[in-house]
Amino acid sequence: MRKVFQEELKSVHDDLVEIARLVAAALEKAVESFKSADVDLAQEVIAEDARIDFRQTALDERAIDILALQGPVASDLRTIVGSLRMSASLERMGDLARHIAQLARLRYPESAIPVQLERTFARMAELDQQIITDLTTLLESHDLALVAKIQGANAEIDDLHAGVFRAIADASWTGSPALAVDAALASRYFERFADHGVSVSRKVSYLVTGEWDGDMTSN
Amino acid sequence: MRKVFQEELKSVHDDLVEIARLVAAALEKAVESFKSADVDLAQEVIAEDARIDFRQTALDERAIDILALQGPVASDLRTIVGSLRMSASLERMGDLARHIAQLARLRYPESAIPVQLERTFARMAELDQQIITDLTTLLESHDLALVAKIQGANAEIDDLHAGVFRAIADASWTGSPALAVDAALASRYFERFADHGVSVSRKVSYLVTGEWDGDMTSN
Repeated sequence: MRKVFQEELKSVHDDLVEIARLVAAALEKAVESFKSADVDLAQEVIAEDARIDFRQTALDERAIDILALQGPVASDLRTIVGSLRMSASLERMGDLARHIAQLARLRYPESAIPVQLERTFARMAELDQQIITDLTTLLESHDLALVAKIQGANAEIDDLHAGVFRAIADASWTGSPALAVDAALASRYFERFADHGVSVSRKVSYLVTGEWDGDMTSN
Repeated sequence: MRKVFQEELKSVHDDLVEIARLVAAALEKAVESFKSADVDLAQEVIAEDARIDFRQTALDERAIDILALQGPVASDLRTIVGSLRMSASLERMGDLARHIAQLARLRYPESAIPVQLERTFARMAELDQQIITDLTTLLESHDLALVAKIQGANAEIDDLHAGVFRAIADASWTGSPALAVDAALASRYFERFADHGVSVSRKVSYLVTGEWDGDMTSN
């Protein structure tokens, strides 16, 4: 019984890592489609988001079965409940990658990025990609040094996000209102993606150390 | 033991209803501050959001204690796990009310609403208020007729949301890029609020009937 239980816990863990990998792949394609206005690639991200949703549902069902059949307590129980929460955050990160791809498709054949913000967005995309890569490794290895690294990347994204809003409000802004809206939304998607990444990383840290470094609510 | 368990389930239920009430109050104040650029009221919403977060954390801790101590199965287990998910959605709805209030504060003393979209936003606000009121009643009474009503309001909000984006992209738009961004973000906050409302209402329906009417993923 105990061995079966450990195997089941392991399979929930493996599912989480697999979902994180799918999200990383989705973000990479979404960023590429966003940069290059590649509508086919955007279409791929949108279609594949359904796979992430499906994997999340399967993980959740498995976690609930474990709760029902094994009645785990203490740290095993926290791990299962934590997995339910982390899978919800990862699924949401997949949605945000899809939203980024949808912006690319919406503006096709134009780019959704105003020229003066190209470097800002390139950096935001790079940071988000670093966050999901580090998060996948963190989920796999429990190397807690990555938690601070993810938080650092998130802080830089927050600054860039504020900069996008300042640029749009500035008198020197020459883009159309519609372009301003695209930039604001894209910036928000990148920023939310990072927030969810931080939220998952803190849950991993909590499950490993038993200590919570802040508020329990997902942001 | 059984009686204690039923009381504990009941208290989780009561907590959910209470959080829904706090969200309804937050949205009402947020909408008022957004309409009238009332910065003090906006400040209140922002401060009170911490109370909603605190209540959610308390509910989640209680739910996890019940899982640990009572090892519920079948429909009781689904109810507890469902409560964890619903509390997360309600907490997020509170965040969105706070975001709406923050837009009001950011633009003070100007209004965050472009004149030509005033009626659209008034209707979106009204629909969101109806959704959270109906959701609170649904959580209390399990009157499933409200689920379809909430979905209907959400469909109308989706149309209004698309209309805001069309208005901004239209050649007749005369507002600044910054005002366009505010309108787009506000519209998105109202739309997301409704989405979470639908998500919670479907979970209630699932817990009452045992049948799921669509995908499990929160939107």
